Parts: sequence; C-alpha cells; structure tokens
Amino acid sequence: MSLRPNRPLPLATPAGVEVLTRIITEEPIPRVEIARRTGLSQAAVTKAVAPLIEAGFVTDQPTGPAEELAEGQLGIGRPVSPLTVVADSVSVIGLKVTPTDLIGVTTDFRAGIRTVRHQQLSGTTPDLVLERLTTLAEELIGALDDDAGPLIGIGVAVSGDVDAPHGVVRDSPFMGWRDVPVAELLTEKLGVPVVVSNDVRALTVAEHWFGVGVGVDSFAVVTIGSGVGCGLYVNGEVVSGANGVSGELGHLPLAPGDLVCTCGRRGCVETVASSDAILARTRETTGRADLDLSGAIDLAHAGDEHAREAFDRAGEVIGSALAAMVNLVGPELVVIAGEGVADYDLYEQRMREAFAAHAFGAAGDARLKLRSHTFDDWARGAAAIVIRSYVRGERPFQR
Amino acid sequence: MSLRPNRPLPLATPAGVEVLTRIITEEPIPRVEIARRTGLSQAAVTKAVAPLIEAGFVTDQPTGPAEELAEGQLGIGRPVSPLTVVADSVSVIGLKVTPTDLIGVTTDFRAGIRTVRHQQLSGTTPDLVLERLTTLAEELIGALDDDAGPLIGIGVAVSGDVDAPHGVVRDSPFMGWRDVPVAELLTEKLGVPVVVSNDVRALTVAEHWFGVGVGVDSFAVVTIGSGVGCGLYVNGEVVSGANGVSGELGHLPLAPGDLVCTCGRRGCVETVASSDAILARTRETTGRADLDLSGAIDLAHAGDEHAREAFDRAGEVIGSALAAMVNLVGPELVVIAGEGVADYDLYEQRMREAFAAHAFGAAGDARLKLRSHTFDDWARGAAAIVIRSYVRGERPFQR
Ligand SMILES: [Zn+2]
Ligand SMILES: [Zn+2]
Repeated sequence: MSLRPNRPLPLATPAGVEVLTRIITEEPIPRVEIARRTGLSQAAVTKAVAPLIEAGFVTDQPTGPAEELAEGQLGIGRPVSPLTVVADSVSVIGLKVTPTDLIGVTTDFRAGIRTVRHQQLSGTTPDLVLERLTTLAEELIGALDDDAGPLIGIGVAVSGDVDAPHGVVRDSPFMGWRDVPVAELLTEKLGVPVVVSNDVRALTVAEHWFGVGVGVDSFAVVTIGSGVGCGLYVNGEVVSGANGVSGELGHLPLAPGDLVCTCGRRGCVETVASSDAILARTRETTGRADLDLSGAIDLAHAGDEHAREAFDRAGEVIGSALAAMVNLVGPELVVIAGEGVADYDLYEQRMREAFAAHAFGAAGDARLKLRSHTFDDWARGAAAIVIRSYVRGERPFQR
Repeated sequence: MSLRPNRPLPLATPAGVEVLTRIITEEPIPRVEIARRTGLSQAAVTKAVAPLIEAGFVTDQPTGPAEELAEGQLGIGRPVSPLTVVADSVSVIGLKVTPTDLIGVTTDFRAGIRTVRHQQLSGTTPDLVLERLTTLAEELIGALDDDAGPLIGIGVAVSGDVDAPHGVVRDSPFMGWRDVPVAELLTEKLGVPVVVSNDVRALTVAEHWFGVGVGVDSFAVVTIGSGVGCGLYVNGEVVSGANGVSGELGHLPLAPGDLVCTCGRRGCVETVASSDAILARTRETTGRADLDLSGAIDLAHAGDEHAREAFDRAGEVIGSALAAMVNLVGPELVVIAGEGVADYDLYEQRMREAFAAHAFGAAGDARLKLRSHTFDDWARGAAAIVIRSYVRGERPFQR
C-alpha cells in the first residue's frame, strides 16, 4: 500500500507551489497578474504553469459552455483565458467528528461539495469512532463519480489539540480522546493518505483558500456552539501555534473564577458561553431539570427572563472574548460561525455591547460578519486541509 | 528639501529586498544558503547581491582585522566569505518618547547602538515635545562620526495607537496626544525622512531583525511597566493590526469590572498591573499617600504585606493575560521586557501561577524569557523600524 497520492502534482519548486496556490485561491487569474502578485518573472510563471496544464490540473481555456464562445475564439490560435483550476482533476473527502455524529463530504479540487453523508454515533471511544469513520469513508469512496478525478486523500477534523504533522489527536475534551493516532489508523484501513486537523483551524483554512478570506489581509473565524473556538489568519497564513495550540478563545479566563470548565480550568469563556453552559444555567434558574437545549432556546425566544439571562450572560462573555481577540490580533474581519449562529438573536445585543465596551480604539473597527452555518462546512474544512497539504507537498504528500 | 534618503539602495525587485533582508537578519550567510532558504535560484541571488556589494552595503570579504587573515586569502583570487552587512554603510537615529523623558540613539545598519542621549521633558504638549525632539535629533546628527555612513532617516517610537503609514500618532493616552502628525512636522524641521511607530511594535521589529526573534518561528514581546504592552511576531512578520491596533495586552478585560482604566474602559489589565496602579493600590492599603513607586517597591521588598499584595494582584492579572495571549496565538517564545522587569521578583510567583492555571494544553509550553531592559532599547527599536522601512522601500523610502 502506497501513501503517495494517486495523482502526483508536477511541482518541483517553491515557485511552482506559489503559482498553483495563487491559481486555486485567486482564480480566474492571468499569468501576468500572478507574476505581479508574487514578484516572480513572467517566464518563471509560464514555466511553472506549463506542466500543470499538461497534466490537466490547470487550464487557460474558457471553461463555460461551448455555445457561449464567439466563433473566432474557437480552434487553434484563439486567445488564452485567465488560468483556472480544473475542478474535476482530483477528488477529496472531508470528515468531521462530533461526539454524536460523523459528517462526510466529497469535494472537487476547489473544495466544492459534491456529496454529503451523515452518520450517527452510538459512542465516542476511538475504536468505535474510527470504525465508523472507515465505513463512512468507504461509502463516500463508493459514491465518487466516474467523471471525477482520482481520490487524493481524506481529511479529518476534530475539536481540541491536534498534532497535525503527525496526524494525532493529542487531547480532545469533547471526544474524551487523548493521543489517538487517527491518520495512521485510518490510512492503514483505507490505503489513502489521511490528514488530521483541529476543526476550527480547518474551517479557517477553507475560508482562507476558498471563502471570505480571499483578498482579506487578516481575519478571524469565531465559532459559537457546543464550544467557542477561533481560527486566525494573519500575515499571509493561518496561525497554527508553535506547540499546535492557538485560537482557544473558549478558554480565555474571562468568566467568573468560581466556574469550572470541561477542560478543568477555572473561569474559561465556555463555562458560561457553551451551549451546555447555557442549558445548565437555564435549568438551574428555572428549576426545570428536564429542559433540553432547544427547550431553553424556545423559552428564551418566548421571553422567559431566566432563559434570556443565560443567553445574556453568554453574549456578554463572548463579546469580551471578541474584544480581547481584536485587541491582541487586530483582524480586518471577524466571521461569526458555528451552530450557535442559528440563535444569534439571543446573544447579539449583549455581545455587541460588551465588544464595544472593551475593544481598544481602532481595533473595534473590525467588521463583524455572520456566516450561516451547517455541519457540512466543518467537513468541507477537512477537505480544504487535504487540498492545501497536497498542493504544498506536506505530509503525507511529500514530493 | 528632498525626502529621498541620501543613500538609495540598489534594490529593483522583490527578490532583491528578500535577499538583503536575509543578509541583515541572518548574517553571516553564504549565497547558496540564501538560495536554499528563499527558494530563489542561485543565479537570482548572485544577481541581487552584486549591486549591493558594488554600492558598499554588503560584503563577501572577511571583515575581521587584516592580520587574522591567512596569507593565501589575501589579494585577488582569495575565497569569498559568507555575506555580511557593511555596518557603517549608513547611520540611523532612533528616538523614544515618554511623558518625562526623550531617549535618543544613533545606530549602524545592524541597529548597533553608537551613541545615546537622554533629555528630560518639562511637559507633554505636542509643540513642546516636537521642539525637544528636534533639538535632540540635531544633537545626535552633530554627534555622527565622520567614518559613519550618511544618515538615512529618523525613527520615533511612541506608545499608543500610531498610524505608521502616515506617521501620525492617533491616540496616545500616556502623552495625552491625539492626531499628532509627528513624521510630517519633524521632517519639515530636519529635512530627513521620519518614520513613526508604536513603541512596543518597534521593539518587536528590533527583536525580529536583530534580537531573540532571529531563527524563532513565532514570539511575543510583553512589556511591563508604566503600561503593559505586547508585540507579536507570527507567520514571518510582526502583527500590525488591520486598523493599526494590535498587542494591546494591557487593555484585555481581565481585571475587576469596577476599576476604570486610563483609557476609559473598565477592567483593563492595566487597572491593576501598571506601575501607577500598583502605586495607587499600595498608597490606598497602607494609607501612605506620600509614597512614590520606588518607595512602594522598597516596602514590598521589605516584606510589607500591603505593598506585596499590590504586586501579587498585578502578577496574577499579568499571568492571566499571558495565558490569554498564548491560548490565542500560541507563540514559541515569550520575552518579558519593559522597565518593570527590574522588580520582576515581586510579580513572578503569582504571574507564573496564574499563567499555569489558565494556559491551555501545549500553549503553556511557550518558553518565558526575561530580558533585562533599558530605555535605550526602545530608542533602538525606533531605529530598527527605519532600517526595515529603508530596506523594504516603504514610505518615506519609496524607490
Ligand atoms: Zn476551559
Ligand atoms: Zn484600558
């Protein structure tokens, strides 16, 4: 069994990687524009592009329906178009792991979703989850279109501290996992290169390469839901943390110090802002131990004072956390995402008030942008990580 | 009067800038090593280096005393050495502004300090301070050695929100300045290009180009003293903030919400951790309104319970702030600097305890490093900003 992708990229130099990255993230883009943006000579760009076109990963031909072309444009000698990626040149699988469900997608070379599969989990032990991930991946492989390019790899997104270079989930409190070598185990079963990533970081890479981050100099993706996470894109790259940890917005000590977090620390943002914390607070103040999260949300929407207070408290600490983040990092754009976005109206006012109260000077000018969110996006993030590693020739795609 | 530097750099391409940057920050470095680290061809490196050597900014000849050279190395045909910068090819002036003093240095092309001058201030109005800055700069210009290269520019470091591209101090609470066009005013008086920067960011650039940051993938410089600041270096560059604000560690909302900061916000780190806050607390709890900062420090060193409590409180919130920063950004190294370092023993224990309590997982593995600190370093930071702008061809050094 080989770890080499089925379809090796003809990229021999750093310039080649830079050129293909520009095409993928900024397409359609003319050669001359790549030269301008990268500082490479036009000859160097042309040299890097030629084998990519030859191998069918990139094209300079119009990709619209033939009937849209003017007559003179057809045949030999027609003017070349800006460069674009050949979406169907490869296939990618992205998988997102949650304690209750697995979500899987297949995508093209642009991280465009082709198919989606969900699978419920009956437990969270590594053995069980890896078995189900294998089954789900096999299903998705079976669903790959005949026209689609060969599968280059599988990405897995998990919350927590993930050692991406080694494909190991070091510590995922939500899953109750420690030191699970996901990449190795899945590669063994599936015979395909596997890349593992922190889920929020994967989402941020997807936004950087294929989403709101294109053309933005710096941005943060803040996810609100069962946890509070944050992906940062600064100085031309996603922030990954020297020791693999970064963006742990949910564990800034901004909440009261008497509250103990699922991570064991005191006063973390998540002690009041996670959906579990909101539910627990509502249960406590209403005396209704039977409530579930949607019940608490309904109560709050119906104007129940206790339920509203739980969301207010969450909104306030999330706003303080956003302020802390912009004061430190100063991004141009903050994207609010995650399943909690569905009930954003319940947080928004207090969140904005706290943000305004604590954002320092011009740091508060960061644009806030809401992103409607589906679990499929998380799985797409995992696919984006595969595409990026493949283009860069990173493990397990070394060239 | 011309804004062009006296000694233009022969850098026509982005590759040239990249090559000179490598030589300055990583010298001594052979051409082949520059090619390896940048991904440029060796021919491109050689092409970029030639005019720099020709113009006397860079050399590939041994720079030690002549008597150290072996006989065979002398004369035509001797082997070339790794590339180094010619330190004396240019002169730079760096100025640091504080509410009570101005500190000025002259440096060489490596930001090596040649001379230092201090000047007391009798007030903080922009008019007065700019007049004194002019006088100090003129003194430093007069002190420039005849052997030293021509003065390329003057850097000014000020705390607060600085619009570096326009050379305007937008908001400096310490100075009580708003919208002071420092670069324009000083350039008018001195006829030399002037660059203005936030002081902590300047210090971080100096560490990145000439200090602990060389060879480190990511680091933070945290300054403790009259304020609490933070410079961040991530993904190959100092974090500057999309709107000019970043690293405002002193204004994270981690202190009690009933305390009002000099910035007007509530619960900022500086409300308990700035030297003024520590002094105010000690005065309050000891009932000794006559105390000054060194008196409070002496009391704490003598074991006075009230004075110690003020430092404990500061240490605790600084530790929480450090944890918040590493949880978000995950740097490899945290350098503790600033005038407060002189009394670090009074903060250290509580700071480390709070850091350990709130740092998330492997983020807590960031190395903490104490840096003995002088005000001259701040002025050197301002000089480093000039050197970087000059090499990069940034305003006011456009090529
Ligand atoms: Zn926590
Ligand atoms: Zn403040």
